[in-house]
Amino acid sequence: MSEIIATYLIHDFNGEHEKKAESIALGLTVGTWTDLPHLVQKQLEKHKGRVVSVTPLSEEDRANRYFNRKVYRSMIKIAYPSGNFSNDLPAILTTVFGKLSLDGEIKLIDLDFVGDIHKAFPGPQFGITGIREKINVLDRPLVMSIFKGVLGRDLSFHNEQLKQQALGGVDLVKDDEILFDQEQTPFIDRIRTGRQILKEVYETTGHRTLYAVNLSGKTFELLEKAERAAEAGADALLFNVHTYGLDVLQALREHDRINLPIMAHPAYSGAVASSSFYGVSYALLLGKLVRLSGADLSLFPSPYGNVALEKEETLAIAEALTKDEPSWKKAFPVPSAGIHPGMVPNLIKDFGTDSVINAGGGIHGHPDGAKGGAKAFRSAVEAVLIGKALSDAADEDEALSKALELWGGL
Amino acid sequence: MSEIIATYLIHDFNGEHEKKAESIALGLTVGTWTDLPHLVQKQLEKHKGRVVSVTPLSEEDRANRYFNRKVYRSMIKIAYPSGNFSNDLPAILTTVFGKLSLDGEIKLIDLDFVGDIHKAFPGPQFGITGIREKINVLDRPLVMSIFKGVLGRDLSFHNEQLKQQALGGVDLVKDDEILFDQEQTPFIDRIRTGRQILKEVYETTGHRTLYAVNLSGKTFELLEKAERAAEAGADALLFNVHTYGLDVLQALREHDRINLPIMAHPAYSGAVASSSFYGVSYALLLGKLVRLSGADLSLFPSPYGNVALEKEETLAIAEALTKDEPSWKKAFPVPSAGIHPGMVPNLIKDFGTDSVINAGGGIHGHPDGAKGGAKAFRSAVEAVLIGKALSDAADEDEALSKALELWGGL
Repeated sequence: MSEIIATYLIHDFNGEHEKKAESIALGLTVGTWTDLPHLVQKQLEKHKGRVVSVTPLSEEDRANRYFNRKVYRSMIKIAYPSGNFSNDLPAILTTVFGKLSLDGEIKLIDLDFVGDIHKAFPGPQFGITGIREKINVLDRPLVMSIFKGVLGRDLSFHNEQLKQQALGGVDLVKDDEILFDQEQTPFIDRIRTGRQILKEVYETTGHRTLYAVNLSGKTFELLEKAERAAEAGADALLFNVHTYGLDVLQALREHDRINLPIMAHPAYSGAVASSSFYGVSYALLLGKLVRLSGADLSLFPSPYGNVALEKEETLAIAEALTKDEPSWKKAFPVPSAGIHPGMVPNLIKDFGTDSVINAGGGIHGHPDGAKGGAKAFRSAVEAVLIGKALSDAADEDEALSKALELWGGL
Repeated sequence: MSEIIATYLIHDFNGEHEKKAESIALGLTVGTWTDLPHLVQKQLEKHKGRVVSVTPLSEEDRANRYFNRKVYRSMIKIAYPSGNFSNDLPAILTTVFGKLSLDGEIKLIDLDFVGDIHKAFPGPQFGITGIREKINVLDRPLVMSIFKGVLGRDLSFHNEQLKQQALGGVDLVKDDEILFDQEQTPFIDRIRTGRQILKEVYETTGHRTLYAVNLSGKTFELLEKAERAAEAGADALLFNVHTYGLDVLQALREHDRINLPIMAHPAYSGAVASSSFYGVSYALLLGKLVRLSGADLSLFPSPYGNVALEKEETLAIAEALTKDEPSWKKAFPVPSAGIHPGMVPNLIKDFGTDSVINAGGGIHGHPDGAKGGAKAFRSAVEAVLIGKALSDAADEDEALSKALELWGGL
């Protein structure tokens, strides 16, 4: 039987978690049970939620302190029959965490798609392998950079930044997520001129860079706008999925006249995932859900910078994006924020070669500008992959040497 | 100048909140400032974020206990020029709480739309006055009830419940939010048969009841499906806005071939609004944002039941839905969950006559069934409005008497 098994972390003050789990399993499906006539029970049996497990956890000081009393914690798993909902994330999220999200200290940790349900979700169209093929980089972490300070500047500023980043050898460049449709840098113009610049860089250096343009605007204009982006030659889309909805991401992925890699930005996701008591886990939100909806790359705060997640959380996101799944290609984990070339050894140790190393300040703040910053990253990656210390590599590479001097890592 | 002023509650460990506010105002707009050449500063001046105020708050024991150290708290206000974003909520939320939602202990409390921006958002199409006119109830709180246990049952079950609720005199009946498109109770059939039943009840009793059907499914099918609902004679739409996105609600509101009242359900909103440190305030999410996007009614957990919000929070939601605004009609506050007839005096005291009294168990659990439950609510409302004690009213009304005996309030 197809079903979705939801895992929740619950905190409460009485510890009657078996009872609580039972009341969730019924309350979010058939409502009541024991009072129902036998015939109705038979009729509703296939819709009834089921408690899969209740696992008490040890006490946690922080929770006890916050509530100023003894707090009982458990991890509980509830199965919801697939016949209860249509195969879309709004219906699934309403079922498993609609009313329940309002019901005290409860956090949605994971969703398992058992049986056929996973087939309703496409996963990435390109995935890690497909993106690698597009740029013919098969064996190393990709290097990505972010435009900086484009808001209020004109297209020539945007173009020059793109050129410098590409010349330095980054594999991907993304728009700033707060760059919407500005008169000075119109969407289609950014795509058209960007394409031309990247073509010139490729003809000069042999290096191919993809530019992810920020797809923004009203929801019901997005499909047509993305189609126009594809026609204008866009390489990839950046998308602020969490201010729209996961189902909108899925529609972009499934639309047959778009066919572009999608980079999911984590903007606004902290509103849903930051609390230890409420909301949705980062691994589920920025990992599994974003992947099954169709993102080819998922950005999330790195564990190193000042906008940081716990390392364990970031590894769980990356694991959800890259673990083997029967129906879904792998998506690239993109740990972001606070990244400079000196961190590359740790990044590769933590996230492996199937990851994207993404920097903003660590590219643009380089003494030789974005081109130098990009070069420093590429050299750092190369050094790590051949087992060379960064300090040794820096002896032969001025850009890397300057970066390590400025940001540390020597 | 048009701008959006965002109010944030911040918690941190150093209390340098002026500096923090300044870094937010720059970081989320032009990036840097003092290092920019004078000419560039002139060019970017109109895009620069501005710190409006920084108001230190007193220490809070709970926060200190949670973090196990002294926590500094402030309410800060930042103004974002409207030229920075397109006039849609995904762009606005990305600007004011995109990356920032991931940046430590920060909660978005309010958004003020200064200048012309509010005109980009329609507010309710009908609002409190328009809904009242549809059912010709001008001077009392409305009474609403929720289907119970329809999942897995057939259309005749659904129809009979609808009939009983309407016969008892409720003004509005809403689908359960977890009732999606089921074979046994198809969307259009629910609308068509429901319409016929409510017509018959009206012809028998002279009382008009509106039925809000749950609009669900894939995002890009919603507009067409809502059109079909309107054609089939739907009275109103129930919509799980928070699993879709506020902009989808706005599109439903603005579509010119739908023209139906929209009831916003709070499913999943707890994931965003429950924490005291992170996310978005309930008053903003279930009050102002849902109203300006176009909901005519907004459901939220009442302060009385077991799925409860703090009373102060519920009053703030209601205030955001009903306060005078230049561009937006008022939306009905619908405090929900745990409501029985004995609570009507408190409900009217707390939420006034421009509110909807909404019950599930308090209707269906009545000893005389849904019809009796609905009658008891209507009698309780009538009593309160003429200043009669419920216990006195119960002497003359058997349905009310039974309700008060069962649930208390005598």
